[in-house]
Amino acid sequence: MSAFLDQLQQYIERHALFKSNDQLLLAVSGGLDSVVMAQGLQLLGYKFGIAHCNFNLRGEESKADEKFVRQLALSFQVPFFLKQFETSQLAQESKVSIQMAARDLRYAWLEEIRFQHGYAFVAAAHHQNDLVETVLLNLVRGTGLAGFHGILPKQGNVVRPLLFATREQAEDFAKDYILRWREDTSNASNKYARNLVRNKVIPILKTLNPSLENTMKSTAEKVALAEKVLARQVEEAKSKWVTEGQGFVKIDIQGLQSITNALYFLHAILQEFGFSWSVSKKVMESGSGISGKIFYSSTHRLLKDRENWIIDYREVAKFVPVSILPTTQTVRLLFGKVLNLKLLEGGLELVTILKSKSSVLLDYDKLVFPLTLRSWQEGDTFIPFGMEGEKKISDFLIDAKYSLFEKERIVVLQSGQEIVAIIGCRSGQRYSVGQATKRILVAELVFIG
Amino acid sequence: MSAFLDQLQQYIERHALFKSNDQLLLAVSGGLDSVVMAQGLQLLGYKFGIAHCNFNLRGEESKADEKFVRQLALSFQVPFFLKQFETSQLAQESKVSIQMAARDLRYAWLEEIRFQHGYAFVAAAHHQNDLVETVLLNLVRGTGLAGFHGILPKQGNVVRPLLFATREQAEDFAKDYILRWREDTSNASNKYARNLVRNKVIPILKTLNPSLENTMKSTAEKVALAEKVLARQVEEAKSKWVTEGQGFVKIDIQGLQSITNALYFLHAILQEFGFSWSVSKKVMESGSGISGKIFYSSTHRLLKDRENWIIDYREVAKFVPVSILPTTQTVRLLFGKVLNLKLLEGGLELVTILKSKSSVLLDYDKLVFPLTLRSWQEGDTFIPFGMEGEKKISDFLIDAKYSLFEKERIVVLQSGQEIVAIIGCRSGQRYSVGQATKRILVAELVFIG
Repeated sequence: MSAFLDQLQQYIERHALFKSNDQLLLAVSGGLDSVVMAQGLQLLGYKFGIAHCNFNLRGEESKADEKFVRQLALSFQVPFFLKQFETSQLAQESKVSIQMAARDLRYAWLEEIRFQHGYAFVAAAHHQNDLVETVLLNLVRGTGLAGFHGILPKQGNVVRPLLFATREQAEDFAKDYILRWREDTSNASNKYARNLVRNKVIPILKTLNPSLENTMKSTAEKVALAEKVLARQVEEAKSKWVTEGQGFVKIDIQGLQSITNALYFLHAILQEFGFSWSVSKKVMESGSGISGKIFYSSTHRLLKDRENWIIDYREVAKFVPVSILPTTQTVRLLFGKVLNLKLLEGGLELVTILKSKSSVLLDYDKLVFPLTLRSWQEGDTFIPFGMEGEKKISDFLIDAKYSLFEKERIVVLQSGQEIVAIIGCRSGQRYSVGQATKRILVAELVFIG
Repeated sequence: MSAFLDQLQQYIERHALFKSNDQLLLAVSGGLDSVVMAQGLQLLGYKFGIAHCNFNLRGEESKADEKFVRQLALSFQVPFFLKQFETSQLAQESKVSIQMAARDLRYAWLEEIRFQHGYAFVAAAHHQNDLVETVLLNLVRGTGLAGFHGILPKQGNVVRPLLFATREQAEDFAKDYILRWREDTSNASNKYARNLVRNKVIPILKTLNPSLENTMKSTAEKVALAEKVLARQVEEAKSKWVTEGQGFVKIDIQGLQSITNALYFLHAILQEFGFSWSVSKKVMESGSGISGKIFYSSTHRLLKDRENWIIDYREVAKFVPVSILPTTQTVRLLFGKVLNLKLLEGGLELVTILKSKSSVLLDYDKLVFPLTLRSWQEGDTFIPFGMEGEKKISDFLIDAKYSLFEKERIVVLQSGQEIVAIIGCRSGQRYSVGQATKRILVAELVFIG
């Protein structure tokens, strides 16, 4: 057996990429790398199907590639899967680069095929040179640690058995086995950032270190391991100081600040919600400042509240008013909340059984149906249970220490022109259950995730 | 005040580089960066002296640089320190590159001047472009995380107040203030790796990201913080599983392996002793293997012993035999050990007071002076205290579970042709203290660090 095949086998075993009886779905473009991967795995006796994406970016050339890979699958007598994409159009629509669009489309489709046909893993033919290019590109574009490990041998359902080899090694193998492959003419141009790095930058860097690929492989391994160590620390910090629930993520400010190098942990948490490093630094500074400051990422916003940083979606949908009839049993609110309504025959004697933090109890016979369930508005007032006079709802929510984000989600129940309850919080004095109550309407707020 | 000076002041404060009344020692080459740093700090009212290294690498040019910096110091009316180096010669002798030699020499001398003249910090004029270059060079040469943070604003006694600025900003400042500076003609050539990266690689990368310097600054900040988090973890692991003493460093194999991602921690510990990533991986694998395997770095070796990995210097000096006269009181052994000899008038009744793990007690009157203290040799035998027959010292040491490294350090005491004791361990049966003993020779092994 050739040294190349030996190394391939060892790499698969050392990184526990897949087992000998796993069925693989190989992503094959028809280029040198993917042909070498397919031939190598076939010679080692692995079982696979072949998947090819035609991005239709290079006209006749794309068609010829497709034909080539189809024949390759035929020659191996393995299943062939094909997907045609109108990449340019899609990229325009989604406002991302063609390469990004092609990448995302490709992996989504491969995962679909993998799942539908019961393949264990998708195998991609990245090698060490790709790793070097990726690390450099990440470095140029800005990155955290993840950018430095570059491409990993195993990530989710994707495995990369060729990552042990350099392009030169793959070429030698192809020569030894007289393999044919398709040249992608766009590789020769500097059209894309990756090609610029591949054809212009790396050759210069290799004059400084001829074994650049190997060096980078070690670096990538080290960094990937450092990341794992850090990820555990972050998980530990999260389990202590981050809570999720009721549609928010809350970070205990004092708690998080008590960790040494707290900024690292804050950023690790915030970047999941799209917050940048520079915004994370500002959020950290806000920790010791006054409440009410809001920070934005492209998808989320973060409120510096009293004791917590609270993360919410950036765009909060408007709740559309709902009419409540005597027969209404359930209303789906926003943010994973449901309001359950129940009529109970009975008065005060039931109250102790029914009291729960998120239930509001009302004297059914004082209500005028249909009731209206709506978001509260500036200027709304009501007489809270246990009080004498009217109170602005805005003041009531402030006194009850609701955060800005929680306030936005508040829904009130209106009977005629009067607000009879703040859902999940407090009933109005005039509608609360008293000595004369015969029937009780229970409005219970439930979170379903 | 110019925006540049504002930013300089802010950067100094934000990173707490130094205080307004600290005396600084500026490293000034005479190039744009160091001249801008000196002028900037002077305008902001900081107090400093100027230090210049003449590496004599560029003949007349080097002399002219020196003269220029001397005049700069004169014009500021601040102290001027000069050092001439014969760099080429030194580099040849120490077998490192000229740039490495120059760098090390420079920092050593600057630190000397700083300390002698009571300056608080050495200030170096690195800016953001240097940071980008350094990160790329580290990446190419192979690095751990430290290579990615590149240059830090504050490291030990060295501060880098100009790190906030790009070369372009420094140039603009120099133009605004009509500063003069010296061009280093070697910068224009691609003679050195740094210049290759500066003049060939970075211009290409900047076509992909015009604000490359800023991007890298954020990355460097993130990585530096991640490193701090990791360093704390490593310190914690070390405090649990690493012990130092008797000239060795011992790592508890089972203990270290019980940590998740143990390889990261092992490598972090081993790299201080020059062990590479690939050797660290092999050491980790040895953990579950048989004892006796030895690994090497350029300066150290590591033994997989029974329960520990033991780290020792690579070259262990040979102990030269010493004659012991009746008057000898102290012998300095290798590895921080000292042998104290004491004659006590008295017999068995003293033994209980004297017994200590590292003391050997001998019947003084049976000894034939001068005794010889020497390393044990293959083939040496003696009759251990408490035994009947002769035993090979090699077998004795194995039974006593001495590690290979400990065995190398074993010294025996010889009287005539007989070995009378293994120092720090066991006396010979015939020479041990018995009923008839009148005088005792105590040979006590002491570790002094």
